[in-house]
Amino acid sequence: MTRPMLWRALMLLLFAAASAPAPAAEVYQISTISSLLAGGYDGDTTVGELLRHGSLGLGTFNGVDGEMMLLDGKVYRGTVDGRAHLVASSELTPFAVVVAWQPQGSAQVAAGQSLEQLEAALDALPYSPSRILAARVDGRFESIAIRSEPKQQPPYRSLAEVIKAQQVVHTLDAVDGTLIGFRFPAAAKSVNVRGWHFHFLTADRRRGGHVLGLTTGQGAALLQEVSDLRIRFPAQGPAASAGEDEIRAVERAR
Amino acid sequence: MTRPMLWRALMLLLFAAASAPAPAAEVYQISTISSLLAGGYDGDTTVGELLRHGSLGLGTFNGVDGEMMLLDGKVYRGTVDGRAHLVASSELTPFAVVVAWQPQGSAQVAAGQSLEQLEAALDALPYSPSRILAARVDGRFESIAIRSEPKQQPPYRSLAEVIKAQQVVHTLDAVDGTLIGFRFPAAAKSVNVRGWHFHFLTADRRRGGHVLGLTTGQGAALLQEVSDLRIRFPAQGPAASAGEDEIRAVERAR
Repeated sequence: MTRPMLWRALMLLLFAAASAPAPAAEVYQISTISSLLAGGYDGDTTVGELLRHGSLGLGTFNGVDGEMMLLDGKVYRGTVDGRAHLVASSELTPFAVVVAWQPQGSAQVAAGQSLEQLEAALDALPYSPSRILAARVDGRFESIAIRSEPKQQPPYRSLAEVIKAQQVVHTLDAVDGTLIGFRFPAAAKSVNVRGWHFHFLTADRRRGGHVLGLTTGQGAALLQEVSDLRIRFPAQGPAASAGEDEIRAVERAR
Repeated sequence: MTRPMLWRALMLLLFAAASAPAPAAEVYQISTISSLLAGGYDGDTTVGELLRHGSLGLGTFNGVDGEMMLLDGKVYRGTVDGRAHLVASSELTPFAVVVAWQPQGSAQVAAGQSLEQLEAALDALPYSPSRILAARVDGRFESIAIRSEPKQQPPYRSLAEVIKAQQVVHTLDAVDGTLIGFRFPAAAKSVNVRGWHFHFLTADRRRGGHVLGLTTGQGAALLQEVSDLRIRFPAQGPAASAGEDEIRAVERAR
């Protein structure tokens, strides 16, 4: 048995589905990734309103003023210095995704995995690839690269240009914390990031950002499959709409 | 003043917005256009369940067994002979979109317009291009081309192949009836048809299908702008996902 096969088999063994089906839940989303990438940086939804729809999520703030981590019903901003800060409920967001978090299953996370290996391990679990999968991974990270970007001023450039010119990456070593992640099916690719998208917050809630890469330590993943996605489209949006290549570039470029 | 400008000005004059904001409504959607086009022809949602989410809509049935028209809370199937038939509430759908219909405005429709001119006139009304616009157009149609397709058997071909090989087009002349339409923003293009998408049902409810082209007679449009879209992703879906060129080809190919 090869090592990846063993790893997958172990993940499957350790997977524990909830005994009863969870009540119907939805993922709630402000605007779309296409609009955000095209420069739709200003929304009219408050963080307080967002919290009415769930307790686990990720996103950004008006002007793409940092990365949003929504964990245990609290909202944090990851800034370009790598720090995380609690955010007032009056803060506005142009793009965010949140779930009424009721995990249905769990899986151990083995140490020494790259981000791509972690994603492959989660993908091997028995959840539908046609639906949304939300994940929370708590544990040690041997290393994790997080990025943020400074607040923009109008007229806005596209997010691809902002990230290329202004993203700041910090690498944290041997740190405890939580990954907040969503996996969207290919059919949803114009509205959210196809595949996995993770943000990270340290256990002391003082550092965090958008995840570009990592090496796992010991950890545990909690998972929730969600059939329904509710999207709130903004009244004002950019005329253009980003394509998938641009989305990929922004999500993983270093 | 050129004729198109006059026409637009007239439409604007005749536009009557509701005096009070309508209560929050949503468009509810079964699966995605990407999944449907890739061969996701079998769903597990009944027509009865669909009707719980709205009274105006369009879609198809399992096996793409004809075109769906949902009007005044009743569901009709447009078959390849150009006929429309009431459908049992136990019938299943793999793709449908429906709205809790509460029109906010209306506009007169001038005679002699092509489908593209009608769409341009509706686009000139003061609704947000970033949100979903639902429309119901009642009136006379000097001519209207409707299509349907026969029920498919697994293993399924892509919808582009089915339409190319098997769609049947009927042209109805001087007929009274109703257009059911939705306009989705560009950012939603992987989940529904970008721009306008119309199905048609005659006033006697005996003929109908997916609209490929038309010439308007006198008519009136009712419109509802909707900020929220709720998508129910199927547990089982095709691995592939159709691109936008394919969606366009299926929607307007003759």
